[in-house]
Order: sequence, then C-alpha cells, then structure tokens
Amino acid sequence: MITKETKKAIPSDIEIAQRADMKPIVEIAAQLGLTEEDVELYGKVKAKIAPGVWNRIKTRTDGKLILVTAISPTPAGEGKSTVTVGLGQALNRIEKKAVVALREPSLGPSMGIKGGAAGGGYSQVLPMEDINLHFTGDFHAVTSAHNAISAVIDNHIHQGNRLQIDPRRVVWKRVMDLNDRALRNVVVGLGGKAHGMPREDGFDITVASELMAILCLAADLDDLKERIGRILVAYTFSGKPITVAELGVAGAATLLLKDALRPNLVQTLENTPAFIHGGPFANIAHGCNSLMATRFALKLSEYTVTEAGFGADLGAEKFLHIKSRIGGLRPDVAVIVATVRALKMHGGVPKDRLKEPDVEALGRGMTNLERHAETMANFGLPFVVALNRFHTDSAEELEALERWCREKGFPFALCEVWEHGGAGGEALAREVVRLTESGENRFQFLYETDQPIRSKISRIARSVYGASGVTYTPQAEKQIAECEANGWGELPICMAKTQYSLSDDPALLGRPEDFTLHVREVRPSVGAGFLVALTGDMLTMPGLPKKPAALDMDIDKEGRVYGLF
Amino acid sequence: MITKETKKAIPSDIEIAQRADMKPIVEIAAQLGLTEEDVELYGKVKAKIAPGVWNRIKTRTDGKLILVTAISPTPAGEGKSTVTVGLGQALNRIEKKAVVALREPSLGPSMGIKGGAAGGGYSQVLPMEDINLHFTGDFHAVTSAHNAISAVIDNHIHQGNRLQIDPRRVVWKRVMDLNDRALRNVVVGLGGKAHGMPREDGFDITVASELMAILCLAADLDDLKERIGRILVAYTFSGKPITVAELGVAGAATLLLKDALRPNLVQTLENTPAFIHGGPFANIAHGCNSLMATRFALKLSEYTVTEAGFGADLGAEKFLHIKSRIGGLRPDVAVIVATVRALKMHGGVPKDRLKEPDVEALGRGMTNLERHAETMANFGLPFVVALNRFHTDSAEELEALERWCREKGFPFALCEVWEHGGAGGEALAREVVRLTESGENRFQFLYETDQPIRSKISRIARSVYGASGVTYTPQAEKQIAECEANGWGELPICMAKTQYSLSDDPALLGRPEDFTLHVREVRPSVGAGFLVALTGDMLTMPGLPKKPAALDMDIDKEGRVYGLF
Repeated sequence: MITKETKKAIPSDIEIAQRADMKPIVEIAAQLGLTEEDVELYGKVKAKIAPGVWNRIKTRTDGKLILVTAISPTPAGEGKSTVTVGLGQALNRIEKKAVVALREPSLGPSMGIKGGAAGGGYSQVLPMEDINLHFTGDFHAVTSAHNAISAVIDNHIHQGNRLQIDPRRVVWKRVMDLNDRALRNVVVGLGGKAHGMPREDGFDITVASELMAILCLAADLDDLKERIGRILVAYTFSGKPITVAELGVAGAATLLLKDALRPNLVQTLENTPAFIHGGPFANIAHGCNSLMATRFALKLSEYTVTEAGFGADLGAEKFLHIKSRIGGLRPDVAVIVATVRALKMHGGVPKDRLKEPDVEALGRGMTNLERHAETMANFGLPFVVALNRFHTDSAEELEALERWCREKGFPFALCEVWEHGGAGGEALAREVVRLTESGENRFQFLYETDQPIRSKISRIARSVYGASGVTYTPQAEKQIAECEANGWGELPICMAKTQYSLSDDPALLGRPEDFTLHVREVRPSVGAGFLVALTGDMLTMPGLPKKPAALDMDIDKEGRVYGLF
Repeated sequence: MITKETKKAIPSDIEIAQRADMKPIVEIAAQLGLTEEDVELYGKVKAKIAPGVWNRIKTRTDGKLILVTAISPTPAGEGKSTVTVGLGQALNRIEKKAVVALREPSLGPSMGIKGGAAGGGYSQVLPMEDINLHFTGDFHAVTSAHNAISAVIDNHIHQGNRLQIDPRRVVWKRVMDLNDRALRNVVVGLGGKAHGMPREDGFDITVASELMAILCLAADLDDLKERIGRILVAYTFSGKPITVAELGVAGAATLLLKDALRPNLVQTLENTPAFIHGGPFANIAHGCNSLMATRFALKLSEYTVTEAGFGADLGAEKFLHIKSRIGGLRPDVAVIVATVRALKMHGGVPKDRLKEPDVEALGRGMTNLERHAETMANFGLPFVVALNRFHTDSAEELEALERWCREKGFPFALCEVWEHGGAGGEALAREVVRLTESGENRFQFLYETDQPIRSKISRIARSVYGASGVTYTPQAEKQIAECEANGWGELPICMAKTQYSLSDDPALLGRPEDFTLHVREVRPSVGAGFLVALTGDMLTMPGLPKKPAALDMDIDKEGRVYGLF
C-alpha cells in the first residue's frame, strides 16, 4: 500500500529526471538494430531517424500495436502518458522488445501551467527539459511553414490578387507556439497602402495548425507535399476554394518541414526507446503522434505502446477512424487508463474532497469507464483497464473497482509505474501480452468514409458518445452542402468536442444519457484529410493563467533549470 | 583574366555546395583542438560548442582579429561574406590557423529573394541548405522567447494590470522570422473581454528583436539574463519604464535561449572551421555575429576573420564602438571589400550598364571607398582594400583602381575567392598577415560613452559619415531627455541609417559632402546596451516581392532541394 509517507519519499519529476542515467542515444538506437549512420544526432541524447532507413526496414512484419487511452479526463488527472511510458518499460522487463511512441509537448502550455508533458515519477521520457522546450525544432518548423503560407497569401492579395482571393474569406489563420489570447482576434494589414490589405485575422496555437495534422499523417515527403498542396486557404470572391498548391508554395512549405518529418528518438528513465514525434490537437485535429513514428516503432520492435489524446471518445476514436484508416494500422489491444480520483469526480465528488474514500461515488463514476470500454468493444478491440494507483486510494476503493471490472468481464490490472517504474507495470504488461495472443481481436471501423457526412457524424455520436441524436446549425448545414459540392464528402470525420464529458456539455460527467449532440460548424481540413465537426466553443489559442508558470522559470549560470515541471 | 566563358563553366552556388566534400564536424572540431565531448552534434556536419569548454580555454592568448567590411552597398553586390570565407580559406592555405565567424541568415529574406547568405562560388560555408533554413534553431528560440514576453505583457494587462502598464505605450512589439508586411501594423486583443485588451501592435522580423542583439553581446548565461531583465518593454500610465525583470520573465526568456547562446560550428568548402552564430539587424541593431562566437574563435585559432553588416559606416562603426567596447575586443586589421561594379554605381552608372568598362565613373565612385578608408584610419586600424573580382571587370578598370589605391597609400589586394576559393585569396591573406605584424595598429574609439548623447551622435555623423551637422526632430529631443532622465545617457549609440549612402538619403551615392544628418527618433535598447538613433524610415519588417523566391522552392521525394539559392 502506498502511504503518504512513501509519497513524500519520492523525489519530484524534475529531480528524478535530472538524476537519471541516460545512455547515449546511439546505444538506444543500437537496441533497435540501428547503426550510427541510421540516426542524425541532436546532442548526445536526442536523434532523428536518418533518411534511407525506412526503405531498408519497410518490408518487415509489424510488431504488436498497443493503444493507451483513458476515461474522460478530469482535473484530477489520469496519468495516461505515465502509464504509456511505464508499460513500455514493463514490457521490456518481461523480455518483450518494446518501444514507446508519444506526442511532442507544445511550448505554449509549458509557459502557462506548471507540469511537463512527458510522463511522471519513475515513468518519464528524457531529456525532459529539452522535450518540453524546443526539442529538435519540429514545432518551430511547423510555425515557420504555416506562417510562410500566410505571408504569401497576404502578399498575393497586396500584389494585385491575381487569384481574386476574398480577404473576408481567408480561412488560413496564422499560428504561434504560445498561449497568447491577445492574438486570437486581430486585424492585420493596417498602416496604409504600403503595408498590405487590412483584414480580420487571428492566431491559433501551432499544434492546431493543419500542417501539424498533416505532418502526423503523411507517409513520406511526397505524401506530405501532396497533402500540403491540397490545403484549403481561402475562397475567391465568387466562392471558389483556393489551395496552397494554387498559391505555389507547397514545395517551399514541404522544404521547411523536411527535417520535422523525421521521427525523433529518445529514451525513458529505464532506457526503453521512445519516439516522440508530432503533436496535433486532440479536438480540432486527431491528437496522436506521427504515423511515421508509429510505423518505425512497429518495424523496429515487438510491442509499440502509443497514446491518443483525451478520453477514448476523442483520442482513441480518432486514432482508430483517422490515423489507423489513413495509415493502414491495425491496433491489437487498447489500454483504458482510469484513476480512483477521476472516477470519483465522475461520480460527483468535488475536487477538494477527492482524498476521502467514497466507494459509492466511485460506483457512480464507473459508468464513464463502462461507456469507453463498450466503445472499445464496439471497435472489436480487446482491452484492459489499467488502474493508475495514487497514494490516496483506499484499499476498499481499489477492491471495489477491481470487483466491478471482474463482474463486467473487463480485464483489469493495477498499475504502479509512477512509483516503481516498469516494475510497477508488469501485471499490466502480462495482461497486454495475453490479450495480443488471445485471438480476440475483431477490429473494425464504426463507419465507412463513403457514408454521407451526417450519417458518419451520427454514427460516432450514438456508438461512441451514447447520444440519442444530432442537431446542426444552419451554418453547419451550409458547410456540409459546400463540402459535398466540393468533393470533400468522403473524408473521415474529426470531432471537436469537449474532452470533459461524453456529451458536448462539459458539465455532464459520468455517463450522460438522452442527450443530443449539437454540431455548430463543419470545417474541411482537406490537406490532413478529414472534416472537422465542431460542437460547442473550441478555443484554438489558449490563454495564460493569472500567474503563468513562466514566472517561476529560471536558469542559473551553470545552466541548471528551475520551475519547468 | 576571367571571361564570360570561364564564368559559365563555374557551377551554381547550390551545385558547388551539393557536390562539396564535407568532413564530419567532429574532425573540424579536432582541427581546433576540441574533442567529441566538447561539441553537441546537430546531425553530422553541424555542432554547438558544449558548456564547460570556455572555462578551459578562456585564459589563452587571443589570436588576431580581422574585420571584413565594405564600401556602401549597392544592388550590384560587394560579396563581403564571400571574401570573409575566402580569406579564412586562404589563411589556412598559407599555413595560418584561421577560423571564420559569420552571422546566421534570416529565414525571411530567404523566402523573399533568391540567393543564400553564406558566401558564394568556391567560398561558401556548409551545409548551405541547413544554414539558410532552420539551422540549429537559434532564431526560432529568439522568436519564442520574444513572443513569450509579449504574451506575458498582454496577459498582465488582461489579468488586472497590477503594474499599470499603459496599453498605448507598450514598446515591445512581437516578432516573426519572415518577410510579412501585413504584420507591420496590427490591432490585437479584439473579440471581447475574454480575449485581452485591444491595442495597436506590430511585428518586426526576428533579427530586429532586441533579444537577438542581446544574444550577440552577452558574455555568458548570467550576463544574458541580466541584459534580458533590463529590457524596456512599456511605460506605465504615469510614464515609468517597465522592464522584463519587473514582469518576472527574465528567467524564462533566458531558459528559452540557453541553447541558442552556444556558438554553432560548421565548415567552409575547404574545411576551414566556421562559427555561424547570431544575426542582429545592421540598422536598428549592431549587425555582427555573437560575441561568444568571436571569443571562441579568438581562443581557438591564430586568425579570426569576421564580418560586419552593410558598409564600414554602419557595420564596422558598430563593430568597433559597440561589440568591441562591450566585449573588450581589439581588432587588428580591417579588410574593405569593393567591386568595380559597385564603385561604378557610386560613380553614377545605372545598374543595367555596369558591364561596360567606364574608368571615369569608377574614378568618381572611388570617393566612397576613400571615405570608408579614412574612417578605418580614424579608428587607428590598419586596413587593406580587397577588390572582389567579377568576370565583367576590364583590365583597365582593375589597373585604375590599383593605381589609385597605391597613390592614396592604401594597401590593396585583388581577390578571386569566388572563382578559385582560398587559392584566389592568398595575396589578400599575405597582406593581412603583413599588416597584423606591422605594429601600425593604434585602435581607439571615436567617442567615449560618458559624452552627452548629442555629442556622441555628432561625432559619428562627422567623423564617419562626413556630415556637416545633425538635426533632431522634437520627438527625438524629447526621447533624448527621457533617456538622460532614466539614466540611459551613457550607453553607446547604435545608428539606424540607410546603408546605401554615407548620408541619410539613399539616393546620395559616392561621397556626399555638406549634408546634414536628420535624427528622427532615439529609442533605448537598454538590455542590449545601446541607444538607437533612427534617421529616415527604417522598416523593421520587410515585405515579399511580387514573385517571392518561395514560389520556386521545392524538394523531391529523395529530399533534394531546389530553388533555395
């Protein structure tokens, strides 16, 4: 049993990370059968996979693909990344060659709210400081390429507007990898004739860029360029869509992304190889690490443990319907991460009373887990519930949860990877191995892309969220018609919905019933290859809190970092 | 004699660069006495100097410092970077251990106008493609740190404005490393109460950020943080200056720049070690590579060949008065680069007739060279005129120029490094070595920082530009008074003036006489440690041309790059 005392004895994430015994990244590469020539070093503990490696390994048989997802997130935290890293470490401990594949964190949130995005406790990826700052520059490359397209759009309008772009209908906003609410709505091109055409514009955070989604779905440089070329940036005065290819900058934008497209290799605290690559939003985009990183991991290991954003209703659904479909992936097993604390919040306990044992509230909250488990079953995916243990969890609560899972027939494993690293995840690892070998996988999509747009949205709403119906605003209706008229009707759907509820109302925790999903807008991401159905208000540029984490950050003259985690 | 035929036989810059035989950067480091542990690799042919190296080498005696400057630039081009690289190669050929120290190019102009910024012909630095794109991410780090400060300013105002910042007097604009005229003048914070306080703002190009100037003048991490803390970002409603330190983000901004502060090591086509690090504007900033890179070069070689932006009136003056003063550098010799074509333009020949021999116009244009040579003499610096030969130069023109230099007593060397690499610069290299050993160096500043602001500006205007006087707008007068009242009066001056003329009127070529310099504004760059005196209109955010270079850029599926040079 983890007590408060043992909790206190465990050092902070940054202390653990700074004391870690990292191996040279060439040794980690060697574990994967890669030579020094196969990697491009970024310092001694980061590398990108060199061009040419893919051609050598692409005909190999894929390893097993383990998708880590979770219940609907709450402010109490689920620790999905921590479980992903810990499971990778645990699989290696039980003699399975495993690789972890995660998203890169965005700089914006790092400056806003304290807390890294690379696991925690004894299940972290390293070097944590670099990963949380500039890393290998991938996000900066996306920012540059994105804004280069913007500059060319405004320059095109300024220099005579040959394509007749309607300045009121430029849908390609600018981006910045920061939390900066003052940039959400801006007017650009002010100051007179020499300084461009005035128009309304706005900035999204870089992870919301369609280029980020494309980077994470592209199979190779050629596919990247083709997808970039298809991006819709504006409409003409007569309503004709204008693409990046028509602007003539698909080549330049691809060139700016040539290094960013190569997967990054790092390691966990226990020297398990980890690909950390790409990081699209999990609401207006699909929220998974890059397809290329996942493909490399599958070719280079027996088990690839990867994570999808938010809960299973969002991240896993998109992983399965978008990334797996585009990439031809066939996931073997899903891990649904839950915590006693978060389940109690779903059962109605307020945040400040989560430390008190409350088996009854836990029971009410389990319905959220149940809904996500049913979704995995609907997809035909074997799954295991991973209970990520916190020191405040009581014995009765843990027993109640395990008993409930057994009654429902849900495979269950207690997970203590935060405190014990891989050793704390061996039970989960063994359960995952058992399920991959069980022959129970019947993976299937819940919709086909050639169904009508409304039918695809309705299928997700009913089979994944448990909604009883879907309504559309007149704007959404108009956009659906426009998408169908422009030939985009057969793209898969990327739902943008609050992560806090299975419904589109963030206040409805647990397992809401008899609710209607309200689709406000349908925006085409033609380059990424999906239609974004927006429900509720989605902020694509976060703001900073009253006391941003940046105010606590520091570095001393020896280069020691403070306040980053 | 170089004829058009031989010109045609020389491949393009990118062809030469792509055929080059680069050594692993660890071998280049070894030439400097650095081990594999002393460098952090960024791929196989780029590296940053690892922390700790400086402490080991800092007590060594400095090598010789050679400053490459030029006549007033013209659209005909002078090839200053090419001569800098070629001279470094040539010094190595005559058995002197030489290192080249250059600025990093900005992505913005690369997207705008074709032509790399890393030398040319057989005098280039490599890997040219990387250097002209993201390189090691230094500029992206500056962009992030700069805009993080902006986000914190707007967040501070939004969250209650404890410091009482006047939204009309935020002097810290945002930045972007692109040419994007539509961002010059913007309004941010629109959209209602949840989205910040509306105010006028604008974007500069990243190289115009005061952080870029600071990065290039900082001695170490501690100095970097102190300078960042001193940056003036806004005034309160009652007119009190607000600094980055008062906002509480000096630590975070320094943290974001920790890797960017480390000098980058690459190589030339002839495997001469080259530091390429930092790149502040040469008008509103001081326009030289980083002090740290120059210091490393001085400790690790016998000859450091470095370059300052624009002509000697701007780049060299600032190198000597700002960078050398702050860094305690003592340059040994100046090289003044001139071309027959550019001198003819200064003599009144239009651009489309530069191929025709015109000794008379050349004679008139030489007065521009003469003025810059006098300035070097005023500084007490031995100098040599380097005539960077073009294939269109006629024999009589070359003879006339050499004869004129001899008559004036100016050391002279013909430079053919573009066509022949280091071999074409041996005459120049020998002349440089002779001058460093001549004992003629009487280096002195032309003003002391404790003189009044007007007196410092006047001294530059008269002794460097040849102006007969200086006028100030009422705004400049007010700003000077404000600077003195705030205790910034003893900072050195950073002149922002057109590079095309010795005067502040870009149309006045050659050697203008009897002109008055008009100071429009005096802006404090307190963190960088200078006062910027602006004359005429300075654009700090360039625009794209009618047909941006980006439209010709491409990359094929093998990763081969097109249209970058």
